[in-house]
Amino acid sequence: MFKEFMIQGGVTAPKGFYSDGVKAGLKNNTLDLAFIYSKKVSNIGAVFTSNKFQASPLKHFQKNKIRKSNFILINSKNANAMTGKQGLKDIEIIFDNLSQKFDLVNPVMSSTGVIGVPLPIQKIISGAKKFDLSLKKNLNSRQAIMTTDAYPKEIAFKVELSDGRTYSIGGMAKGAGMINPSMATMLAFITTDLKISTSEIQKLLKKTSKTTFNAISVDGDTSTNDSVFLMANGEKDFYDEVSFSKVLKKVMKHLALEIVRDGEGAKKMVTFKISGAKSDKDAEKVAKTLSNSLLVKTALFGEDPNWGRIAMSIGASGVSVSEEKLVISYENLKVFNQGKNLFTPKVEKEAYKILAKNEFTINCDLGFGKGKFESFGCDLGYEYVKINADYRT
Amino acid sequence: MFKEFMIQGGVTAPKGFYSDGVKAGLKNNTLDLAFIYSKKVSNIGAVFTSNKFQASPLKHFQKNKIRKSNFILINSKNANAMTGKQGLKDIEIIFDNLSQKFDLVNPVMSSTGVIGVPLPIQKIISGAKKFDLSLKKNLNSRQAIMTTDAYPKEIAFKVELSDGRTYSIGGMAKGAGMINPSMATMLAFITTDLKISTSEIQKLLKKTSKTTFNAISVDGDTSTNDSVFLMANGEKDFYDEVSFSKVLKKVMKHLALEIVRDGEGAKKMVTFKISGAKSDKDAEKVAKTLSNSLLVKTALFGEDPNWGRIAMSIGASGVSVSEEKLVISYENLKVFNQGKNLFTPKVEKEAYKILAKNEFTINCDLGFGKGKFESFGCDLGYEYVKINADYRT
Repeated sequence: MFKEFMIQGGVTAPKGFYSDGVKAGLKNNTLDLAFIYSKKVSNIGAVFTSNKFQASPLKHFQKNKIRKSNFILINSKNANAMTGKQGLKDIEIIFDNLSQKFDLVNPVMSSTGVIGVPLPIQKIISGAKKFDLSLKKNLNSRQAIMTTDAYPKEIAFKVELSDGRTYSIGGMAKGAGMINPSMATMLAFITTDLKISTSEIQKLLKKTSKTTFNAISVDGDTSTNDSVFLMANGEKDFYDEVSFSKVLKKVMKHLALEIVRDGEGAKKMVTFKISGAKSDKDAEKVAKTLSNSLLVKTALFGEDPNWGRIAMSIGASGVSVSEEKLVISYENLKVFNQGKNLFTPKVEKEAYKILAKNEFTINCDLGFGKGKFESFGCDLGYEYVKINADYRT
Repeated sequence: MFKEFMIQGGVTAPKGFYSDGVKAGLKNNTLDLAFIYSKKVSNIGAVFTSNKFQASPLKHFQKNKIRKSNFILINSKNANAMTGKQGLKDIEIIFDNLSQKFDLVNPVMSSTGVIGVPLPIQKIISGAKKFDLSLKKNLNSRQAIMTTDAYPKEIAFKVELSDGRTYSIGGMAKGAGMINPSMATMLAFITTDLKISTSEIQKLLKKTSKTTFNAISVDGDTSTNDSVFLMANGEKDFYDEVSFSKVLKKVMKHLALEIVRDGEGAKKMVTFKISGAKSDKDAEKVAKTLSNSLLVKTALFGEDPNWGRIAMSIGASGVSVSEEKLVISYENLKVFNQGKNLFTPKVEKEAYKILAKNEFTINCDLGFGKGKFESFGCDLGYEYVKINADYRT
């Protein structure tokens, strides 16, 4: 038994973690460079994008087989992706320089922004040298990591076990586009003062990503950079798997849904809840096909209860389906039931009301077996096009 | 050796084929119901959507194992999809009624429009009874089959063999959205007066779809209805495989590209030419990932030579790739060469010029092997959102 309380502080909420963001001149006079620092060297794990062109910071982490670290440096505006060997070398130059000032153990870098442009290393070095590692300014760091995000994303919990012991977990994320189910496709940083082995961190991240960061979609594209990090610095000398795995999921799901809510130009966050599939794998396929379908997304934008597009998309997902078994509901309102269109003027009016809401669930029961999965998507409107037609300029 | 000449007449160009479109009241006072009739009973073959929820007319064709027919009835506005057993029965009622007036052999139906709404059979029967099967009014029929299409699509060729024999081939198509690589996802009707066996028709359709209708993408969605029909009525008592397979491909590619050009709200038709893949299958995957990527499509709309998005999308396709081997060019202008960004102000200026064109090719050499594939896509702009946010209303 345990209780959790939402608290302030984001990634700096757990004991011994520090964070701040500065203006390094990467963007136009806004915060663009952040750090997360742990006084005690922390165990660290990460899951990365499935994109084959992983960006340089992801290569750097894996090449150096980092398992323990006390420092993550995060820049926005430049992805350091498709930058070849120089991209890796640039990270080393930056950390060589910063090590002259700070006591860094296996420093980790994380970048987001434009692809294919060399990292402005002098700006980053000068900017980072301004860091004060004793600050807990999570409001700055959560801001500095943003790109097209409309608002910052963070959360933190204090957990109280029944025997009175307490610990904390905090997280922040960025991401609003290039969000696709086949890996997190965003940046997220989670900290805790628990003592957790790196292999356990890795196991938890993998498992929990599947139903959180890997279940969201904004535009079906998978970026080169996206990463979820978890640092556990052991300031509290214990680990409680039961509570931690639950609260971690809560943190990761919250950050994931915040990214969907902030989907570039999106107004709605929609849960696609699939049940009755032959397997969970099948249900996942259907859920992700729905949350990625342009025709479904534009119908959501138009607030049009066009269940035909939902059926079309389910049929296109490639899994076993049957018209005679399928049930489609908006929230609890059945609109298609085992071969029958249930739309009457009254039902249609009810459906319009649901579609007008900012958040709702579309339930699809395939009627085959026990497989289930939930994905989280958003509408796609004019703003998405506007943001992405002139991103670089 | 043979020569082909483009001619007028669309599907009525081959000898013995007739076609017209009428106003049956399915849409608001525009042509909405068409027929294709062959005086001689014709061999017929078809390829259908990969969507698991195939619409009733597709089920009807397959259930009745139709190999010979003299009549295709085509309606727009209603897809007769997700309409259960009634959907099939409705088609039978329609043809029972029309058989009282016309001499129909295995009549075939083809529908496009809204999903889940029962077919207005009385309107269709009354409308079809007005047909005059001796008319060659292809300008009407090609119009009647349209839904969100901005313009009608047809083509016809007369073919002259070296020994003086001649034959014709004609085609028309509709489609502007719900266009996806994993099957034609549109309606196309092709006629010829050659004598071709049904099994040969089937073989040709399957093979040629792969590089034409199956290589295009507007929005990555796969409809429940889409079909390509080929009728060969044998008015000419011979078959010439060499010329026919080439001219058929020309007809199918023309109609497919017309659909991309007419992509809902699209201004640009872009060829994604992939080479150097480990296999043709790999090249196909990359080409289709590119033509389906929202981030690539919106960059095309913004006329932004953002090759980083092209690289991102190639990396996301799941095939073997390497930064050190990849070459990306807009037309013949190299912008990324084996790990190196080639953008200088001059090169970037040239790239902008290419992106400003209505049609151009993006070449990607993966540098691995001999696999190649071409896909055809379009940009995605505000108009697409507008059309699809309020399609039903």
